[in-house]
Amino acid sequence: MQYQEKLNVVVIASGRGSNFQALIDAQEKKETPFRIVRLVTDNRDAKAIEKAKKAGIEHHIVERKRFGSRAEYDYALADAVKPEETGLVCLAGYMRILGKSFLDRFDGNVINIHPALLPSFPGLDAQQQALDYGVKISGCTVHFVDEGVDTGKVIIQSAVPVLADDSADSLSLRILEQEHRIYPEAVRLIATGAVQVPGARTKP
Amino acid sequence: MQYQEKLNVVVIASGRGSNFQALIDAQEKKETPFRIVRLVTDNRDAKAIEKAKKAGIEHHIVERKRFGSRAEYDYALADAVKPEETGLVCLAGYMRILGKSFLDRFDGNVINIHPALLPSFPGLDAQQQALDYGVKISGCTVHFVDEGVDTGKVIIQSAVPVLADDSADSLSLRILEQEHRIYPEAVRLIATGAVQVPGARTKP
Repeated sequence: MQYQEKLNVVVIASGRGSNFQALIDAQEKKETPFRIVRLVTDNRDAKAIEKAKKAGIEHHIVERKRFGSRAEYDYALADAVKPEETGLVCLAGYMRILGKSFLDRFDGNVINIHPALLPSFPGLDAQQQALDYGVKISGCTVHFVDEGVDTGKVIIQSAVPVLADDSADSLSLRILEQEHRIYPEAVRLIATGAVQVPGARTKP
Repeated sequence: MQYQEKLNVVVIASGRGSNFQALIDAQEKKETPFRIVRLVTDNRDAKAIEKAKKAGIEHHIVERKRFGSRAEYDYALADAVKPEETGLVCLAGYMRILGKSFLDRFDGNVINIHPALLPSFPGLDAQQQALDYGVKISGCTVHFVDEGVDTGKVIIQSAVPVLADDSADSLSLRILEQEHRIYPEAVRLIATGAVQVPGARTKP
């Protein structure tokens, strides 16, 4: 399948960027209705940068410490993402909360992946939260980003069993396999219009 | 498989008792390590009473309106369940919160089934809550009962997809199929000792 008009995607990551890699793999493996045009990171040591270089994707580093206020930083971050050229922003292990001043510039076209079946276990250490609660099923959720912590509209979820001898690491790995499957799928659904973006503007 | 010592189970239900029926079916279909010895209900019109009669299981009606205080009612309810003869209390659509005065008399041997993947969507109308949130996966949870609302230790969970055109009824039916599967399984796990009852006493 050939897609005439592809959705321009920018990924924001703070760390290794394994979901960034999953998106790269998806577009390299077969014809996709999206194209990753840029990586933006707040961490100049992020392993995701190597992944971008290897895939021939440009990257921008926007360090928090270079900006006084949170709003200034958010504005610079949005500038680096280039709202006028970007159809969708995908957070992939971005470890900061995005402010309203950022979100407003993308009209709701920002998604995130979270390693739990939201609304269970929002926030940090979701896998450990799941183990501490003692659930038998956890999973992951792709959702639109709003100003809350993991409270936006759900796009896709995938469930995995929690095993009696799981550690946070072993559970994280099992969930990660599903993340790598559903994150590209969610971008595909948005790119083809199968999922409505809340407050969507015309795609560039 | 023959079980020499069976766990005596009492079911408390307020309505149709479809999970009560699932427990009856389980013990009629094959040799189980538990035996349903009694139905207790707070509703003399509960359809569960007919199911008890048909299965040859005795029933007791304890109406809330016959008691002044909540504590008196809870005490009478516990009396009807007969703590000295009962190894496990299974709530099956019992529409009231059990007080500490009840729970203390059963040393934690009280379980419930809830139509959501707890800790998501505790309390009433869990299926409608799931639809309102927009999750793509819901399910059901068998858990020990503590003094909170659906906060006790999880025993088994089962996940089901939430479909785009689901109503609360259609989702409830899909979840109910799983409830009827995991509730007898949870009782079996407790009866065989595979699941530890928190604060367990010697089984009668």
